[in-house]
Amino acid sequence: MAETAFVVVGAGGRMGRTLVRVLAETPGARLIGAIEPEGSAVLGADAGVLAGLPPLGVAVTDDPLPLFAKAQAVLDFTVPAATIAFAELAAQARLVHVIGTTGLSASDEEKIAAAARHAVVVKSGNMSLGVNLLAGLIRQAAKALDSGFDIEILEMHHRHKVDAPSGTALLFGRAAAEGRGVDLEAMSVRVRDGHTGPRPAEAIGFATLRGGSVVGDHSVVLAGEGETITLSHHAADRAIFARGAVKAALWGQGKKPGLYAMADVLGLSA
Amino acid sequence: MAETAFVVVGAGGRMGRTLVRVLAETPGARLIGAIEPEGSAVLGADAGVLAGLPPLGVAVTDDPLPLFAKAQAVLDFTVPAATIAFAELAAQARLVHVIGTTGLSASDEEKIAAAARHAVVVKSGNMSLGVNLLAGLIRQAAKALDSGFDIEILEMHHRHKVDAPSGTALLFGRAAAEGRGVDLEAMSVRVRDGHTGPRPAEAIGFATLRGGSVVGDHSVVLAGEGETITLSHHAADRAIFARGAVKAALWGQGKKPGLYAMADVLGLSA
Amino acid sequence: MAETAFVVVGAGGRMGRTLVRVLAETPGARLIGAIEPEGSAVLGADAGVLAGLPPLGVAVTDDPLPLFAKAQAVLDFTVPAATIAFAELAAQARLVHVIGTTGLSASDEEKIAAAARHAVVVKSGNMSLGVNLLAGLIRQAAKALDSGFDIEILEMHHRHKVDAPSGTALLFGRAAAEGRGVDLEAMSVRVRDGHTGPRPAEAIGFATLRGGSVVGDHSVVLAGEGETITLSHHAADRAIFARGAVKAALWGQGKKPGLYAMADVLGLSA
Amino acid sequence: MAETAFVVVGAGGRMGRTLVRVLAETPGARLIGAIEPEGSAVLGADAGVLAGLPPLGVAVTDDPLPLFAKAQAVLDFTVPAATIAFAELAAQARLVHVIGTTGLSASDEEKIAAAARHAVVVKSGNMSLGVNLLAGLIRQAAKALDSGFDIEILEMHHRHKVDAPSGTALLFGRAAAEGRGVDLEAMSVRVRDGHTGPRPAEAIGFATLRGGSVVGDHSVVLAGEGETITLSHHAADRAIFARGAVKAALWGQGKKPGLYAMADVLGLSA
Repeated sequence: MAETAFVVVGAGGRMGRTLVRVLAETPGARLIGAIEPEGSAVLGADAGVLAGLPPLGVAVTDDPLPLFAKAQAVLDFTVPAATIAFAELAAQARLVHVIGTTGLSASDEEKIAAAARHAVVVKSGNMSLGVNLLAGLIRQAAKALDSGFDIEILEMHHRHKVDAPSGTALLFGRAAAEGRGVDLEAMSVRVRDGHTGPRPAEAIGFATLRGGSVVGDHSVVLAGEGETITLSHHAADRAIFARGAVKAALWGQGKKPGLYAMADVLGLSA
Repeated sequence: MAETAFVVVGAGGRMGRTLVRVLAETPGARLIGAIEPEGSAVLGADAGVLAGLPPLGVAVTDDPLPLFAKAQAVLDFTVPAATIAFAELAAQARLVHVIGTTGLSASDEEKIAAAARHAVVVKSGNMSLGVNLLAGLIRQAAKALDSGFDIEILEMHHRHKVDAPSGTALLFGRAAAEGRGVDLEAMSVRVRDGHTGPRPAEAIGFATLRGGSVVGDHSVVLAGEGETITLSHHAADRAIFARGAVKAALWGQGKKPGLYAMADVLGLSA
Repeated sequence: MAETAFVVVGAGGRMGRTLVRVLAETPGARLIGAIEPEGSAVLGADAGVLAGLPPLGVAVTDDPLPLFAKAQAVLDFTVPAATIAFAELAAQARLVHVIGTTGLSASDEEKIAAAARHAVVVKSGNMSLGVNLLAGLIRQAAKALDSGFDIEILEMHHRHKVDAPSGTALLFGRAAAEGRGVDLEAMSVRVRDGHTGPRPAEAIGFATLRGGSVVGDHSVVLAGEGETITLSHHAADRAIFARGAVKAALWGQGKKPGLYAMADVLGLSA
Repeated sequence: MAETAFVVVGAGGRMGRTLVRVLAETPGARLIGAIEPEGSAVLGADAGVLAGLPPLGVAVTDDPLPLFAKAQAVLDFTVPAATIAFAELAAQARLVHVIGTTGLSASDEEKIAAAARHAVVVKSGNMSLGVNLLAGLIRQAAKALDSGFDIEILEMHHRHKVDAPSGTALLFGRAAAEGRGVDLEAMSVRVRDGHTGPRPAEAIGFATLRGGSVVGDHSVVLAGEGETITLSHHAADRAIFARGAVKAALWGQGKKPGLYAMADVLGLSA
């Protein structure tokens, strides 16, 4: 198998180092470049050593151009301004650009869409294969089953998490609402305490558990008369986002230019 | 095995008919009497037929005295006034009196305690073997594990249930709080929505799901650093309360007079 | 809403009586006929009373013709010979014929296919909405995720079940194998005990639990590096097959003649 | 709080390094010594750095005597010969000796028992708090519930595990068999495939799943008529054994000399 040459931008950050580790264990993938912004304290350091691995012979640099010229894919979980700049460079070099950056403005999104006219861009707010697959399955299940099946969403995270429900629970809620053809905001039930009255038809309920060191557990329950379907995702470590990004980049090789989502990588119909 | 002779009071009600069915399938148990209040529409009917079984040759009557004289056990899920009266009769006849009646006042409880000086009384707000066992295990787990393990309680019931959390969830919460040595009211977290902040140490969290025809599912999660214990109960039908009552009555045969709980039937240390 | 008029064949059997009960609680459905074979002991009895309901004014008969002339749907969980005969009559009368009969031969299937040229036939070995939906989701999940995700199938049934794995577990296994593009027979691992060696890539593992009165629980686990997806079905009572059949018959109203599966009723792509 | 001074023996091994990391994050614990055998390649290295932490100022040494003189506890997951030697030294120094070493012979066990006449020894084949707690709960549940509740044990581990059932599943099976008063070997059912016949009363069933990177999931199901209890343990990382060992050592401070098990640390009645 021909190897795909990867550049990791933001290679000195937590996610960048995770990407370097995942690449090192992925057959068919090879790290050829590691980028940090000008002035970063880790410029010149070996990207493998930074990631807790043996040296990989890839020194962190602030100059993307020579690397983009040799690479086939760039993995980017950085910040909007950097991502926009990399999108332009990646488009010129016809690299597959995998974007996990969050906080993009409408104007940023437009620039990324423009870049995607020339090269493959895969962009998602959550790169986990399992989460994206489950969202697709939830949408279909909610659509196939009518309001005889009640939809409930349960999540559990570690004791340090400060908000509820989780972003992934809301993502699953949106998938369910789309499938059911209802408005999530209008139908969400987020609190049940004391006298609640019977469950409203078409409600989408959320429940939250917190404790220990749980990385992230989510279940969507579709409860009907006499039977219940439960669709669950268990995250054991945060490297699943890096694994999904690497998989997306490998998937994107040879695809037509365009802006893709993880659902495309998974081959899910919309 | 010698058979134990049972009287069911309130035999025409929903729970009474369930008790009749459970007795019919319990080896070592025999129904000899079925009682309804004076004026009941089902007086004279066959208790088996009322319960959806073939005739058992036991006609519903409003006169307990001849039946109590021949029986060894009486099963009672009725109303406080009736239960007090039956307690006195059962004590005189030295029957095992199993009481699942709810709504008893302090004065009612005193009268039952008085009766229990002469005969075996088993009384519980929830007669399920599984629920009572789990409460005992939860108490111990909460005691054995320190605050490094966070306690969360999840319940799911059918869409028609109008309050939250369920009585069983609160029963489990009390067991956990007793084990941990904290005050349940003070430590309960029943709502999580939006910015919650980190989980308070020693909190006991509750989460509620509603949907379909679920009879009653409960889980208590003890989540620590790197490991999680989950203790769950699934109720498939409401006959579990009747089964527990019959088991309690059989257990009570030959025991010393006294007021017992299901924990005693299960041999759990307090 | 216009009511759909139903005939239940085999109305005196266990499944027939369940169908009668489900129809009675389904808005938009009305029972107009109940059929048993010539010589049945329940001919003339009220179909509602047989099903444990109040009288419905529908006497069991052995003459289908006048009923088929007035009905829009026939529900059929009988035996192959009867089903073939009903298929012909239903086709002539342009009824939706829902077939849950098992043990059909290839020749039987041909006759049903012939009937389906003139009327809507919905046929399935398992009429549960949830099971059929889950099979579709499993197929897609197995296809979307590559062999980095291991597929395992777990089932639990009551203590009286005499074979393993369950038919539904095998149905889920076939769905997974189709999605993954492997041969289920070749890749099944049904026993693990002692020294097993590492798990073969592309294996589909089965595990079986037995106990209590469990009606039927199934889980398909897709376990990858750092994340796990679990797709589960819990059956609380056997009426789910009757509910699915009624839903299929309502769905079939106004559809083009043809032979349909539950996947069509659910709107799942093949 | 006074700090407890710890020595870790085998500090350069995988478990030793995990112990060093756990000590570093445990309030009230302080590492004062790290021991490796004579000739080890890591003698002289900083124990913190070996463990992936910043330097702790504790150099690995092969001389236990000066360290044991200053410590209050020694953590020992090494090999039998080393453990026997350390047990004698720990007894002389009146240290709490926590032993997770496996493969001890009967003669080794005698020597450890002899040492335990002079000092606190806590010994267990599995140091996880959760696993040991669950074993205690399983024993009680199996005892409290009669053969109307069937016992089933399910485990899942990663794809690389080469044997089944897991040691922890067998530990739980023994706990259940003890509680039930049956012989585990005689009552185990480890294979179900094809025609199995109905479940034998008092059987203890095992089922095994393999896949992905699952560290270790175990469930014990007690399935009765109409209700099911499930007692589960989820291990997220292997540091739980180190955490349990540290907790045992802290618990042992000030206790009477003796040979203790994790059940004692947890305050579980036998």
